[in-house]
Amino acid sequence: MRKLFQEDLHNLGDQLTEIASLVGEAMDKAYTAFETADVQLADEVIAADVRIDNLQHDLDEKAIELLALQGPVAGDLRLIVGALRMSTSLERMGDLARHIAQLVRLRYPDHVAPETLKDVYAKLAGNGLQIARKLVQLLETRDLELVHEIHALNEQINALHAGVFTTIAANEWTQSAATTADCTLASRYFERFGDHGVSVAKKVHYLVTGEWEVATDA
Amino acid sequence: MRKLFQEDLHNLGDQLTEIASLVGEAMDKAYTAFETADVQLADEVIAADVRIDNLQHDLDEKAIELLALQGPVAGDLRLIVGALRMSTSLERMGDLARHIAQLVRLRYPDHVAPETLKDVYAKLAGNGLQIARKLVQLLETRDLELVHEIHALNEQINALHAGVFTTIAANEWTQSAATTADCTLASRYFERFGDHGVSVAKKVHYLVTGEWEVATDA
Repeated sequence: MRKLFQEDLHNLGDQLTEIASLVGEAMDKAYTAFETADVQLADEVIAADVRIDNLQHDLDEKAIELLALQGPVAGDLRLIVGALRMSTSLERMGDLARHIAQLVRLRYPDHVAPETLKDVYAKLAGNGLQIARKLVQLLETRDLELVHEIHALNEQINALHAGVFTTIAANEWTQSAATTADCTLASRYFERFGDHGVSVAKKVHYLVTGEWEVATDA
Repeated sequence: MRKLFQEDLHNLGDQLTEIASLVGEAMDKAYTAFETADVQLADEVIAADVRIDNLQHDLDEKAIELLALQGPVAGDLRLIVGALRMSTSLERMGDLARHIAQLVRLRYPDHVAPETLKDVYAKLAGNGLQIARKLVQLLETRDLELVHEIHALNEQINALHAGVFTTIAANEWTQSAATTADCTLASRYFERFGDHGVSVAKKVHYLVTGEWEVATDA
Protein backbone atom coordinates (compact mmCIF):
# COMPACT_ATOMS: atom_id res chain seq x y z
CA MET A 1 0.00 0.00 0.00
CA ARG A 2 2.77 2.36 1.06
CA LYS A 3 4.79 1.52 -2.03
CA LEU A 4 1.80 2.12 -4.27
CA PHE A 5 1.27 5.51 -2.64
CA GLN A 6 4.88 6.52 -3.37
CA GLU A 7 4.25 5.47 -6.94
CA ASP A 8 1.13 7.66 -7.03
CA LEU A 9 3.11 10.63 -5.74
CA HIS A 10 5.72 9.98 -8.38
CA ASN A 11 3.01 9.92 -11.04
CA LEU A 12 1.74 13.30 -9.87
CA GLY A 13 5.23 14.66 -10.48
CA ASP A 14 5.29 13.11 -13.94
CA GLN A 15 1.95 14.70 -14.76
CA LEU A 16 3.25 18.12 -13.69
CA THR A 17 6.32 17.60 -15.87
CA GLU A 18 4.12 16.68 -18.81
CA ILE A 19 2.02 19.83 -18.39
CA ALA A 20 5.16 22.00 -18.06
CA SER A 21 6.50 20.45 -21.23
CA LEU A 22 3.26 21.22 -23.13
CA VAL A 23 3.35 24.77 -21.76
CA GLY A 24 6.85 25.21 -23.19
CA GLU A 25 5.67 23.90 -26.55
CA ALA A 26 2.71 26.30 -26.47
CA MET A 27 4.98 29.28 -25.76
CA ASP A 28 7.41 28.22 -28.49
CA LYS A 29 4.67 27.97 -31.11
CA ALA A 30 2.78 31.04 -29.90
CA TYR A 31 5.89 33.16 -30.30
CA THR A 32 6.70 31.74 -33.75
CA ALA A 33 3.11 32.53 -34.76
CA PHE A 34 3.51 36.03 -33.27
CA GLU A 35 6.77 36.68 -35.07
CA THR A 36 5.68 35.39 -38.47
CA ALA A 37 1.94 36.23 -38.33
CA ASP A 38 1.22 32.53 -38.86
CA VAL A 39 -2.47 32.18 -38.16
CA GLN A 40 -2.53 28.38 -38.67
CA LEU A 41 0.09 27.94 -35.99
CA ALA A 42 -1.80 30.36 -33.73
CA ASP A 43 -4.94 28.24 -34.15
CA GLU A 44 -2.91 25.17 -33.26
CA VAL A 45 -1.83 26.78 -29.98
CA ILE A 46 -5.40 27.83 -29.21
CA ALA A 47 -6.73 24.31 -29.89
CA ALA A 48 -3.92 22.59 -27.95
CA ASP A 49 -4.68 24.56 -24.79
CA VAL A 50 -7.69 22.32 -24.13
CA ARG A 51 -5.28 19.45 -23.60
CA ILE A 52 -3.40 21.39 -20.92
CA ASP A 53 -6.70 22.24 -19.21
CA ASN A 54 -7.75 18.58 -19.26
CA LEU A 55 -4.42 17.37 -17.91
CA GLN A 56 -4.66 19.89 -15.09
CA HIS A 57 -8.16 18.70 -14.30
CA ASP A 58 -7.02 15.05 -14.25
CA LEU A 59 -4.06 15.86 -12.03
CA ASP A 60 -6.25 17.77 -9.59
CA GLU A 61 -8.77 14.92 -9.36
CA LYS A 62 -5.95 12.46 -8.79
CA ALA A 63 -4.44 14.67 -6.08
CA ILE A 64 -7.78 15.00 -4.27
CA GLU A 65 -8.28 11.22 -4.52
CA LEU A 66 -4.87 10.69 -2.90
CA LEU A 67 -5.78 13.10 -0.11
CA ALA A 68 -9.02 11.20 0.48
CA LEU A 69 -7.67 7.66 0.28
CA GLN A 70 -4.28 8.09 1.95
CA GLY A 71 -4.83 10.86 4.48
CA PRO A 72 -1.22 11.92 3.99
CA VAL A 73 0.63 14.08 6.52
CA ALA A 74 3.83 16.14 6.69
CA GLY A 75 5.95 16.10 3.52
CA ASP A 76 3.58 13.96 1.48
CA LEU A 77 0.69 16.27 2.25
CA ARG A 78 2.72 19.36 1.32
CA LEU A 79 3.71 17.64 -1.89
CA ILE A 80 0.13 16.97 -2.91
CA VAL A 81 -1.12 20.45 -1.99
CA GLY A 82 1.92 21.85 -3.80
CA ALA A 83 1.04 19.83 -6.90
CA LEU A 84 -2.47 21.31 -6.85
CA ARG A 85 -1.00 24.81 -6.76
CA MET A 86 1.67 24.19 -9.36
CA SER A 87 -0.89 22.75 -11.75
CA THR A 88 -2.94 25.96 -11.41
CA SER A 89 0.08 28.12 -12.28
CA LEU A 90 1.07 25.90 -15.20
CA GLU A 91 -2.46 25.96 -16.57
CA ARG A 92 -2.38 29.77 -16.41
CA MET A 93 0.92 29.78 -18.32
CA GLY A 94 -0.85 27.77 -21.02
CA ASP A 95 -3.65 30.36 -21.07
CA LEU A 96 -1.12 33.17 -21.52
CA ALA A 97 0.51 31.42 -24.49
CA ARG A 98 -3.01 31.05 -25.89
CA HIS A 99 -3.67 34.77 -25.36
CA ILE A 100 -0.58 35.58 -27.42
CA ALA A 101 -1.87 33.27 -30.16
CA GLN A 102 -5.27 34.97 -29.96
CA LEU A 103 -3.66 38.36 -30.59
CA VAL A 104 -2.05 36.86 -33.72
CA ARG A 105 -5.45 35.60 -34.89
CA LEU A 106 -7.07 38.98 -34.17
CA ARG A 107 -4.57 41.01 -36.21
CA TYR A 108 -3.96 38.51 -39.04
CA PRO A 109 -2.78 39.14 -41.79
CA ASP A 110 -1.00 42.02 -40.03
CA HIS A 111 1.73 41.45 -37.49
CA VAL A 112 0.77 42.22 -33.89
CA ALA A 113 3.95 44.17 -33.15
CA PRO A 114 6.05 46.54 -35.27
CA GLU A 115 9.69 45.96 -36.24
CA THR A 116 10.85 48.37 -33.51
CA LEU A 117 9.83 45.90 -30.80
CA LYS A 118 10.85 42.72 -32.63
CA ASP A 119 14.03 42.16 -30.63
CA VAL A 120 12.36 42.85 -27.29
CA TYR A 121 9.60 40.32 -27.92
CA ALA A 122 12.18 37.79 -29.14
CA LYS A 123 13.94 38.12 -25.81
CA LEU A 124 10.73 38.08 -23.77
CA ALA A 125 9.62 34.90 -25.53
CA GLY A 126 13.10 33.35 -25.39
CA ASN A 127 13.27 33.87 -21.64
CA GLY A 128 9.73 32.57 -21.21
CA LEU A 129 10.59 29.45 -23.17
CA GLN A 130 13.75 28.93 -21.13
CA ILE A 131 11.76 29.26 -17.94
CA ALA A 132 9.29 26.60 -19.13
CA ARG A 133 12.14 24.26 -20.10
CA LYS A 134 13.93 24.78 -16.81
CA LEU A 135 10.68 24.04 -14.97
CA VAL A 136 10.56 20.66 -16.72
CA GLN A 137 14.14 19.99 -15.58
CA LEU A 138 13.42 21.28 -12.08
CA LEU A 139 10.38 19.05 -11.70
CA GLU A 140 12.43 16.09 -12.92
CA THR A 141 15.66 16.67 -11.00
CA ARG A 142 14.78 19.07 -8.12
CA ASP A 143 18.13 20.72 -8.76
CA LEU A 144 17.65 24.00 -6.87
CA GLU A 145 20.25 25.79 -8.95
CA LEU A 146 17.49 25.92 -11.57
CA VAL A 147 15.30 27.95 -9.20
CA HIS A 148 17.92 30.71 -9.20
CA GLU A 149 18.22 30.56 -12.97
CA ILE A 150 14.46 30.86 -13.35
CA HIS A 151 14.45 33.86 -11.00
CA ALA A 152 17.21 35.53 -13.02
CA LEU A 153 15.39 34.92 -16.31
CA ASN A 154 12.26 36.45 -14.84
CA GLU A 155 14.16 39.51 -13.62
CA GLN A 156 15.24 40.03 -17.22
CA ILE A 157 11.64 39.64 -18.36
CA ASN A 158 10.56 42.35 -15.91
CA ALA A 159 13.22 44.70 -17.25
CA LEU A 160 12.23 43.95 -20.86
CA HIS A 161 8.57 44.50 -19.99
CA ALA A 162 9.42 47.90 -18.50
CA GLY A 163 11.43 48.63 -21.66
CA VAL A 164 8.35 48.09 -23.82
CA PHE A 165 6.64 50.97 -22.01
CA THR A 166 9.68 53.19 -22.45
CA THR A 167 9.62 52.47 -26.19
CA ILE A 168 5.89 53.12 -26.41
CA ALA A 169 6.17 56.43 -24.52
CA ALA A 170 9.07 57.72 -26.63
CA ASN A 171 8.65 60.39 -29.32
CA GLU A 172 9.84 57.98 -32.00
CA TRP A 173 6.83 55.73 -31.42
CA THR A 174 4.43 56.41 -34.31
CA GLN A 175 2.22 53.34 -34.15
CA SER A 176 -1.56 53.44 -34.04
CA ALA A 177 -3.35 53.34 -30.70
CA ALA A 178 -4.66 49.84 -31.52
CA THR A 179 -1.09 48.61 -32.02
CA THR A 180 -0.05 50.32 -28.78
CA ALA A 181 -2.81 48.48 -26.94
CA ASP A 182 -1.83 45.13 -28.53
CA CYS A 183 1.84 45.61 -27.70
CA THR A 184 0.96 46.49 -24.11
CA LEU A 185 -1.13 43.34 -23.71
CA ALA A 186 1.42 41.08 -25.41
CA SER A 187 4.16 42.34 -23.12
CA ARG A 188 1.92 41.86 -20.08
CA TYR A 189 1.21 38.25 -21.15
CA PHE A 190 4.91 37.45 -21.38
CA GLU A 191 5.49 39.10 -18.01
CA ARG A 192 2.75 37.10 -16.31
CA PHE A 193 4.05 33.91 -17.93
CA GLY A 194 7.40 34.52 -16.19
CA ASP A 195 5.73 35.32 -12.86
CA HIS A 196 3.82 32.05 -12.87
CA GLY A 197 7.01 30.22 -13.76
CA VAL A 198 8.64 31.73 -10.68
CA SER A 199 5.64 30.67 -8.56
CA VAL A 200 6.10 27.07 -9.63
CA ALA A 201 9.86 27.23 -9.04
CA LYS A 202 9.33 28.70 -5.56
CA LYS A 203 6.96 25.88 -4.69
CA VAL A 204 9.50 23.26 -5.68
CA HIS A 205 12.08 25.14 -3.62
CA TYR A 206 9.73 25.10 -0.65
CA LEU A 207 8.97 21.40 -0.99
CA VAL A 208 12.66 20.56 -1.05
CA THR A 209 13.91 22.96 1.63
CA GLY A 210 10.85 23.85 3.74
CA GLU A 211 11.72 27.53 3.15
CA TRP A 212 9.72 29.97 1.05
CA GLU A 213 12.50 32.51 0.75
CA VAL A 214 14.91 31.86 -2.10
CA ALA A 215 18.38 33.29 -1.41
CA THR A 216 18.95 35.69 -4.29
CA ASP A 217 22.71 36.12 -4.08
CA ALA A 218 23.37 32.94 -6.06
CA MET B 1 -13.50 16.19 18.16
CA ARG B 2 -16.00 16.02 15.32
CA LYS B 3 -17.75 19.12 16.58
CA LEU B 4 -14.48 21.00 16.82
CA PHE B 5 -13.66 20.02 13.22
CA GLN B 6 -16.98 21.42 12.01
CA GLU B 7 -16.13 24.61 13.87
CA ASP B 8 -12.75 24.70 12.13
CA LEU B 9 -14.42 24.33 8.74
CA HIS B 10 -16.79 27.10 9.66
CA ASN B 11 -13.84 29.31 10.60
CA LEU B 12 -12.24 28.69 7.21
CA GLY B 13 -15.43 30.03 5.65
CA ASP B 14 -15.31 33.08 7.89
CA GLN B 15 -11.71 33.75 6.90
CA LEU B 16 -12.63 33.59 3.21
CA THR B 17 -15.48 36.00 3.85
CA GLU B 18 -13.13 38.37 5.63
CA ILE B 19 -10.66 38.31 2.72
CA ALA B 20 -13.47 38.87 0.20
CA SER B 21 -14.65 41.80 2.23
CA LEU B 22 -11.16 43.37 2.26
CA VAL B 23 -10.91 42.78 -1.48
CA GLY B 24 -14.14 44.72 -1.99
CA GLU B 25 -12.79 47.54 0.15
CA ALA B 26 -9.54 47.55 -1.87
CA MET B 27 -11.42 47.77 -5.16
CA ASP B 28 -13.66 50.53 -3.82
CA LYS B 29 -10.71 52.65 -2.69
CA ALA B 30 -8.56 51.85 -5.72
CA TYR B 31 -11.28 53.07 -8.02
CA THR B 32 -11.88 56.25 -6.00
CA ALA B 33 -8.13 56.90 -6.14
CA PHE B 34 -8.19 56.22 -9.89
CA GLU B 35 -11.11 58.55 -10.52
CA THR B 36 -9.85 61.43 -8.39
CA ALA B 37 -6.06 60.96 -8.82
CA ASP B 38 -5.82 60.61 -5.03
CA VAL B 39 -2.30 59.35 -4.41
CA GLN B 40 -2.72 59.05 -0.62
CA LEU B 41 -5.66 56.75 -1.08
CA ALA B 42 -3.72 54.79 -3.70
CA ASP B 43 -0.88 54.33 -1.21
CA GLU B 44 -3.41 53.12 1.36
CA VAL B 45 -4.61 50.42 -1.04
CA ILE B 46 -1.03 49.39 -1.83
CA ALA B 47 -0.14 49.15 1.87
CA ALA B 48 -3.36 47.31 2.81
CA ASP B 49 -2.70 44.54 0.28
CA VAL B 50 -0.12 43.03 2.65
CA ARG B 51 -2.96 42.28 5.06
CA ILE B 52 -4.83 40.32 2.37
CA ASP B 53 -1.66 38.39 1.54
CA ASN B 54 -1.13 37.54 5.22
CA LEU B 55 -4.71 36.45 5.72
CA GLN B 56 -4.44 34.21 2.69
CA HIS B 57 -1.26 32.71 4.05
CA ASP B 58 -2.90 32.07 7.45
CA LEU B 59 -5.94 30.50 5.85
CA ASP B 60 -3.79 28.21 3.71
CA GLU B 61 -1.74 27.07 6.71
CA LYS B 62 -4.92 26.42 8.67
CA ALA B 63 -6.39 24.44 5.74
CA ILE B 64 -3.27 22.29 5.42
CA GLU B 65 -3.27 21.70 9.17
CA LEU B 66 -6.87 20.48 8.96
CA LEU B 67 -5.96 18.14 6.12
CA ALA B 68 -3.09 16.75 8.19
CA LEU B 69 -4.91 16.40 11.52
CA GLN B 70 -8.34 15.34 10.35
CA GLY B 71 -7.70 13.38 7.16
CA PRO B 72 -11.06 14.58 5.85
CA VAL B 73 -12.87 12.79 3.02
CA ALA B 74 -15.72 13.50 0.61
CA GLY B 75 -17.49 16.83 1.12
CA ASP B 76 -15.23 18.08 3.91
CA LEU B 77 -12.14 17.39 1.82
CA ARG B 78 -13.61 19.20 -1.20
CA LEU B 79 -14.48 22.10 1.07
CA ILE B 80 -10.92 22.46 2.33
CA VAL B 81 -9.33 22.10 -1.11
CA GLY B 82 -11.94 24.55 -2.41
CA ALA B 83 -10.99 27.04 0.32
CA LEU B 84 -7.33 26.80 -0.74
CA ARG B 85 -8.30 27.64 -4.31
CA MET B 86 -10.72 30.39 -3.43
CA SER B 87 -8.13 32.07 -1.24
CA THR B 88 -5.71 32.11 -4.19
CA SER B 89 -8.28 33.80 -6.43
CA LEU B 90 -9.23 36.32 -3.75
CA GLU B 91 -5.60 37.16 -3.12
CA ARG B 92 -5.19 37.79 -6.85
CA MET B 93 -8.20 40.12 -6.81
CA GLY B 94 -6.44 42.08 -4.08
CA ASP B 95 -3.33 42.26 -6.27
CA LEU B 96 -5.37 43.61 -9.17
CA ALA B 97 -6.88 46.36 -7.00
CA ARG B 98 -3.31 47.15 -5.94
CA HIS B 99 -2.20 47.29 -9.60
CA ILE B 100 -4.89 49.89 -10.28
CA ALA B 101 -3.64 51.90 -7.30
CA GLN B 102 -0.08 51.58 -8.60
CA LEU B 103 -1.12 53.11 -11.94
CA VAL B 104 -2.56 56.06 -9.98
CA ARG B 105 0.73 56.47 -8.12
CA LEU B 106 2.72 56.22 -11.37
CA ARG B 107 0.75 58.96 -13.16
CA TYR B 108 0.13 61.28 -10.21
CA PRO B 109 -0.63 64.23 -10.33
CA ASP B 110 -2.18 63.37 -13.72
CA HIS B 111 -5.23 61.16 -14.02
CA VAL B 112 -4.57 57.70 -15.44
CA ALA B 113 -7.51 57.81 -17.86
CA PRO B 114 -9.00 60.64 -19.93
CA GLU B 115 -12.57 61.98 -19.56
CA THR B 116 -13.68 59.97 -22.62
CA LEU B 117 -13.33 56.71 -20.71
CA LYS B 118 -14.57 57.98 -17.35
CA ASP B 119 -18.01 56.35 -17.61
CA VAL B 120 -16.63 53.04 -18.82
CA TYR B 121 -14.19 52.75 -15.90
CA ALA B 122 -16.93 53.79 -13.48
CA LYS B 123 -19.03 50.86 -14.74
CA LEU B 124 -16.08 48.44 -14.78
CA ALA B 125 -15.25 49.34 -11.18
CA GLY B 126 -18.89 49.38 -10.12
CA ASN B 127 -19.42 45.86 -11.45
CA GLY B 128 -16.16 44.70 -9.89
CA LEU B 129 -17.22 46.08 -6.54
CA GLN B 130 -20.65 44.46 -6.83
CA ILE B 131 -18.97 41.14 -7.61
CA ALA B 132 -16.80 41.42 -4.51
CA ARG B 133 -19.81 42.28 -2.34
CA LYS B 134 -21.87 39.44 -3.77
CA LEU B 135 -18.96 37.07 -3.08
CA VAL B 136 -19.14 38.05 0.58
CA GLN B 137 -22.88 37.32 0.58
CA LEU B 138 -22.38 34.08 -1.35
CA LEU B 139 -19.74 32.83 1.08
CA GLU B 140 -22.04 33.70 3.98
CA THR B 141 -25.34 32.40 2.62
CA ARG B 142 -24.47 29.99 -0.22
CA ASP B 143 -27.46 31.40 -2.07
CA LEU B 144 -26.73 30.18 -5.60
CA GLU B 145 -28.82 32.91 -7.18
CA LEU B 146 -25.79 35.10 -6.43
CA VAL B 147 -23.62 32.90 -8.66
CA HIS B 148 -25.80 33.82 -11.62
CA GLU B 149 -25.72 37.48 -10.69
CA ILE B 150 -21.93 37.40 -10.48
CA HIS B 151 -21.77 35.73 -13.89
CA ALA B 152 -24.02 38.40 -15.38
CA LEU B 153 -21.94 41.22 -13.86
CA ASN B 154 -18.81 39.67 -15.31
CA GLU B 155 -20.39 39.37 -18.76
CA GLN B 156 -20.98 43.11 -18.60
CA ILE B 157 -17.35 43.64 -17.56
CA ASN B 158 -16.20 41.66 -20.60
CA ALA B 159 -18.33 43.80 -22.89
CA LEU B 160 -17.07 47.02 -21.26
CA HIS B 161 -13.48 45.79 -21.58
CA ALA B 162 -14.01 45.14 -25.30
CA GLY B 163 -15.53 48.62 -25.54
CA VAL B 164 -12.34 50.19 -24.20
CA PHE B 165 -10.45 48.77 -27.18
CA THR B 166 -13.08 50.07 -29.59
CA THR B 167 -12.71 53.54 -28.06
CA ILE B 168 -8.92 53.38 -28.23
CA ALA B 169 -8.95 52.24 -31.88
CA ALA B 170 -11.40 54.95 -33.01
CA ASN B 171 -10.30 58.04 -34.95
CA GLU B 172 -11.52 60.32 -32.17
CA TRP B 173 -8.91 58.89 -29.78
CA THR B 174 -6.15 61.49 -29.54
CA GLN B 175 -4.42 60.42 -26.34
CA SER B 176 -0.69 59.79 -26.01
CA ALA B 177 0.69 56.28 -26.46
CA ALA B 178 1.57 56.18 -22.73
CA THR B 179 -2.06 56.92 -21.84
CA THR B 180 -3.21 54.28 -24.32
CA ALA B 181 -0.96 51.73 -22.63
CA ASP B 182 -2.21 52.73 -19.15
CA CYS B 183 -5.86 52.54 -20.21
CA THR B 184 -5.27 49.11 -21.74
CA LEU B 185 -3.69 47.80 -18.54
CA ALA B 186 -6.32 49.33 -16.28
CA SER B 187 -9.10 47.76 -18.30
CA ARG B 188 -7.30 44.41 -18.25
CA TYR B 189 -6.98 44.61 -14.44
CA PHE B 190 -10.73 45.19 -14.03
CA GLU B 191 -11.44 42.34 -16.43
CA ARG B 192 -9.20 39.89 -14.55
CA PHE B 193 -10.75 41.00 -11.26
CA GLY B 194 -14.15 39.91 -12.61
CA ASP B 195 -12.77 36.61 -13.92
CA HIS B 196 -11.34 35.69 -10.53
CA GLY B 197 -14.64 36.63 -8.92
CA VAL B 198 -16.39 34.18 -11.24
CA SER B 199 -13.81 31.49 -10.35
CA VAL B 200 -14.65 31.86 -6.67
CA ALA B 201 -18.39 31.84 -7.37
CA LYS B 202 -18.06 28.69 -9.51
CA LYS B 203 -16.22 26.94 -6.70
CA VAL B 204 -18.97 27.72 -4.21
CA HIS B 205 -21.48 26.46 -6.78
CA TYR B 206 -19.49 23.26 -7.15
CA LEU B 207 -19.21 22.74 -3.40
CA VAL B 208 -22.97 23.13 -2.99
CA THR B 209 -24.18 21.19 -6.04
CA GLY B 210 -21.28 18.90 -7.02
CA GLU B 211 -21.57 20.32 -10.57
CA TRP B 212 -19.03 22.60 -12.25
CA GLU B 213 -21.40 23.78 -14.94
CA VAL B 214 -23.54 26.74 -13.97
CA ALA B 215 -26.82 26.86 -15.90
CA THR B 216 -26.74 30.24 -17.63
CA ASP B 217 -30.43 30.65 -18.44
CA ALA B 218 -31.27 31.85 -14.93
